[in-house]
Parts: sequence; C-alpha cells; structure tokens
Amino acid sequence: MAKSIFYHAGCPVCVSAEQDIINLIGENNVEVVNIGEDRSRIAEAEKAGIQSVPALVTPNGNVLHINFGASLADVKG
Amino acid sequence: MAKSIFYHAGCPVCVSAEQDIINLIGENNVEVVNIGEDRSRIAEAEKAGIQSVPALVTPNGNVLHINFGASLADVKG
Repeated sequence: MAKSIFYHAGCPVCVSAEQDIINLIGENNVEVVNIGEDRSRIAEAEKAGIQSVPALVTPNGNVLHINFGASLADVKG
Repeated sequence: MAKSIFYHAGCPVCVSAEQDIINLIGENNVEVVNIGEDRSRIAEAEKAGIQSVPALVTPNGNVLHINFGASLADVKG
C-alpha cells in the first residue's frame, strides 16, 4: 500500500491527532511531515489541497482535514 | 484491536471520507453509523464529543472531526 502523508505543525492538536493516526493506520503506512519545521514542504502541502493542519493526504490523493490546529496561512506566517 | 466508530449523515463529504477511512484502517476495524438514519444513536455521538460529521471516534475515545459535512445541530434538525 502506498503511504499516506500526515502534515502537521507541531501544535497540541496536531500531536494528538498524529498519535491517533499512527495507532489507526500503523507507523509504517504514514509519513509524518512537520511543515512548521520543514518549510520546504509547505508548497507541496498547499498543492495537495491542504488548508489547515493537521491533515492527512491518502494514497489516492484525497485530503482529510482532521480537527483544527492551524490554518496553512498561519503556518506560512 | 477495538473498533473505531465512524459517524456520518449520508452527505457527500461523509461518503467520500467513509471510503477513505475504510481504505486506510480496514472495513473490519470500523463500525459505520449513519446518524441521519439511525437517530437513536445521535445522543451517543454527542456524548462522545462529536460536533460535526463526518467524525471518527478512535478505540481510546478520541474524536477526529474529518473535513466538514454537517454540524450535529443540523443533523438533529
């Protein structure tokens, strides 16, 4: 199975959701990207359709915005 | 592993998220509840902390609101 990508920005809501997602789909099935730290990947997240973090991009490219930590605009600053 | 519960109300956003969640965590690991049809379970969803659908309640009781289909208030009508 192709990996999902979980984008977050280190916020408390993000960290909680990250643990839940890893528990649900397995650590090996998801790449975790902190776009607060790895800012070179913000553009990629934006292109995927992410409007807020935390968000999960599924292997088929669908975006699941999970709860609400911060808008992408806030992360971009 | 205890099952997660996916609550939805039949809206297009719900149906799309349902397919994604089933693909990600496996059909056998999630109970799907349509609270638009099975209105006896609205109170249970509310008690779990659900504010909008679609939402997933993890085995440890955390609520993941996924995208946004409808508020629980709208479902209750």
